[in-house]
Amino acid sequence: MKPEDFASLRVDGARLMNDIHSTSEWGKGERWGDAETEVGMSRLSLSDTDKQARDWFHETTTALGCKVHVDAMGNQFAVRPGLDNEAPPTYAGSHLDTQPTGGRYDGILGVTAAVEMLRVLNDNWVETAYPVGVVNWTNEEGARFPMSMTASGVWSGDIPLEKAHNLKSVIPANDTATMRTELERIGYLGDVPCSWEATRMAAHFELHIEQGPILEAENRRVGVVQGVQSYKWFTVTVRGRDAHTGATSFQHRADALLTASKMILASHKVATQHGALASTGILNLKPGSTNTVPGFVQFSLDIRAPENETVEATEAACKSAFSALAAGQDVMDIQTGCAPSSRQCTVDWRTDFVSPATHFHDDCISCVQAAAQDLCGSSGGEADAEVKGRDIGSWGKLMTSGAGHDTVYANKRCPASMIFVPCRDGVSHNPSEYSSPEQCADGANVLLGAVVRYDRLRGERGRERGS
Amino acid sequence: MKPEDFASLRVDGARLMNDIHSTSEWGKGERWGDAETEVGMSRLSLSDTDKQARDWFHETTTALGCKVHVDAMGNQFAVRPGLDNEAPPTYAGSHLDTQPTGGRYDGILGVTAAVEMLRVLNDNWVETAYPVGVVNWTNEEGARFPMSMTASGVWSGDIPLEKAHNLKSVIPANDTATMRTELERIGYLGDVPCSWEATRMAAHFELHIEQGPILEAENRRVGVVQGVQSYKWFTVTVRGRDAHTGATSFQHRADALLTASKMILASHKVATQHGALASTGILNLKPGSTNTVPGFVQFSLDIRAPENETVEATEAACKSAFSALAAGQDVMDIQTGCAPSSRQCTVDWRTDFVSPATHFHDDCISCVQAAAQDLCGSSGGEADAEVKGRDIGSWGKLMTSGAGHDTVYANKRCPASMIFVPCRDGVSHNPSEYSSPEQCADGANVLLGAVVRYDRLRGERGRERGS
Repeated sequence: MKPEDFASLRVDGARLMNDIHSTSEWGKGERWGDAETEVGMSRLSLSDTDKQARDWFHETTTALGCKVHVDAMGNQFAVRPGLDNEAPPTYAGSHLDTQPTGGRYDGILGVTAAVEMLRVLNDNWVETAYPVGVVNWTNEEGARFPMSMTASGVWSGDIPLEKAHNLKSVIPANDTATMRTELERIGYLGDVPCSWEATRMAAHFELHIEQGPILEAENRRVGVVQGVQSYKWFTVTVRGRDAHTGATSFQHRADALLTASKMILASHKVATQHGALASTGILNLKPGSTNTVPGFVQFSLDIRAPENETVEATEAACKSAFSALAAGQDVMDIQTGCAPSSRQCTVDWRTDFVSPATHFHDDCISCVQAAAQDLCGSSGGEADAEVKGRDIGSWGKLMTSGAGHDTVYANKRCPASMIFVPCRDGVSHNPSEYSSPEQCADGANVLLGAVVRYDRLRGERGRERGS
Repeated sequence: MKPEDFASLRVDGARLMNDIHSTSEWGKGERWGDAETEVGMSRLSLSDTDKQARDWFHETTTALGCKVHVDAMGNQFAVRPGLDNEAPPTYAGSHLDTQPTGGRYDGILGVTAAVEMLRVLNDNWVETAYPVGVVNWTNEEGARFPMSMTASGVWSGDIPLEKAHNLKSVIPANDTATMRTELERIGYLGDVPCSWEATRMAAHFELHIEQGPILEAENRRVGVVQGVQSYKWFTVTVRGRDAHTGATSFQHRADALLTASKMILASHKVATQHGALASTGILNLKPGSTNTVPGFVQFSLDIRAPENETVEATEAACKSAFSALAAGQDVMDIQTGCAPSSRQCTVDWRTDFVSPATHFHDDCISCVQAAAQDLCGSSGGEADAEVKGRDIGSWGKLMTSGAGHDTVYANKRCPASMIFVPCRDGVSHNPSEYSSPEQCADGANVLLGAVVRYDRLRGERGRERGS
């Protein structure tokens, strides 16, 4: 198809929303509002309701003329033929599993929008140069089997198959299933090896809700995702000395919680200086009594930035600041006004997880940006979007994802990019997670536009190489 | 007896240590060292081992010529007659129950030293002007029945008898006993009403380990306790918003833990400015995941100072600072360098417990100080101790107890004071709690000296009134 035809391809927003809400009948979660669809999701990976959603995916894409196969991790691949079916398909997809108290958009939007893409291609009798595929990745959330993006990680070769198969369910406690036994039980242990060599991809595009507040706050319709932040997770342990709150003056204390509080503040200041993020989501202390100064505090530290070097620099600066604070020194004005203490705390760091920065492929990013420009630029009255910093016109933004996605693993084996749409208040992993029908349709239109553009790009490159 | 005879009255340190360690056979706890006596205590109130200690108290004091009675809360009162037995006794005492992981000195030293006092009076054929009593208060720790200083509180009229009788055991979980059923079971539900009117006291002296590090750090032998700090306990709740740590920039966060950390730091700074103590011993947060900014934090705040007004002023300043911090304002330099946030947290305070300041009686304080001066001034080579600030010579210190004691309730119905001796590293409520034999003997000598001085003071006053 020609570039001038791209603009005529538009998704059916009502049909998309129908897919989202009808498939959300399988695995309904907590109700959060009065409307019929104001109910969250609890569709754990490889559960009975996940099987129902998988069956829907299989039947729907088969009915749309796709050939569907399942691999050894239960990943479902539906392929709509193109003119040259020897070459690998251009894929769109995401995941259909949810958090135990999740919503209707995280993952689900990406798969249903990809299915809607197939419908639009069929409705418009579009012949693509190469096959177009839709993928439903298994256990992206890692909520039931505790490893995020498990099956795309096996596909890319980063996670050993056996390790993934042997992952044990963590919800509920008396569920002794493993991924393999559950794949067998629900009939989704496929006979195709789970690998990028067995199921080849020419490219991978994923539409996802932002899971953050930026697009909504800046009133932008589309995020063009350039990559995923680098991040490291740590457990920091501060040891002081238990002491009676009434009988122990400040100068005789080694207060592990006061010291940890200074460290949390310092991590925030250090991260701000480095243009990184530092967050503490877990904090435990001992002994835990109103009248005892805690002698032991352990807290999580999550450091993120677009580049690995920034994460490393932030980590180093935090380590230096924490050591000084444990030793009772005045760092970053944090101790100003506090009584000095003659006793010191100790601090220990444990590195729990390292995820280097992911940079998506320029070709895929360009296709997403062009599709978004086509959609928003024309309807928004801006024919040629100007890129200022990370802003694209008034409607879009170049973004670095803060969260991990299946596209991180896909990007290791093929060109890839993602599309973000706003979600209300930046809320996700919560029943009340919400993107409007217009926002969902925006995302689906950009996904569709990016895939057909990438297909055309492949065709042009093929011709160039052929000439 | 005459003032010049006071110095000849000295306790037998070995006998005292024998009482401490032999009675500690009942309710032995965790071993913490290699020596025979390096074992902690676990003698919960009204347990079988507490009954053994009570039986020892009864038999020993009876054998020393005391008349012993037990009241409706199981408080044991042993009275050695004086010349005038119509007037109430001058009491010394403390408690024999311990924490579940307690030591051999908290409470136990106060009772055994008072029993040793009876022995010294007998050995020296001392006739006091008025009776001298020894009291063992029930359930001071509040560890098994969850209310500290229960039985002295009933005696003083501050805690209703029925409320105390109905307190349910909290250790272990399957123990359904109440104080009343346990008093009956071990035979210590006395027939004397538990009240200051039924068991009158002319004064109450209590020897106790400091439970703090000051005396040891300043190398002082005796603390002359002038009163007990005022304190208030609060639960502070900070509500922000759960958010993804990777997808949410600092300016879009309402981070309840970062805000709580600033509050903990602010409380410390405010308290330092006011000459008070502020401590957080409990902190809980939700949802508790490494990659989720916590939207909910609840923490305890314990504010103490010698005077009620100081506690109130510290509370008011903390409330003001916390509100400003929740609103994202720069307070006490605590936010310097932090990224500003467009979202605010909310903060709520709940007052859990109020304990006003206790001021002991000048007569009792003077008797303690004179007895300590007599002991330490002479042996330390300082005949006339100079009082500088709160320091008495090089050997002693005027102190305000940070922890509550039975003497707080006793002081409501009669003149009272306390004596502190150093404990190693300020540790208590721990098996390794330790005061040396010399330190124990020092305290017992001051207790003895204070009681005989107070008896003499009563006699002089009686004569003055009689003249």
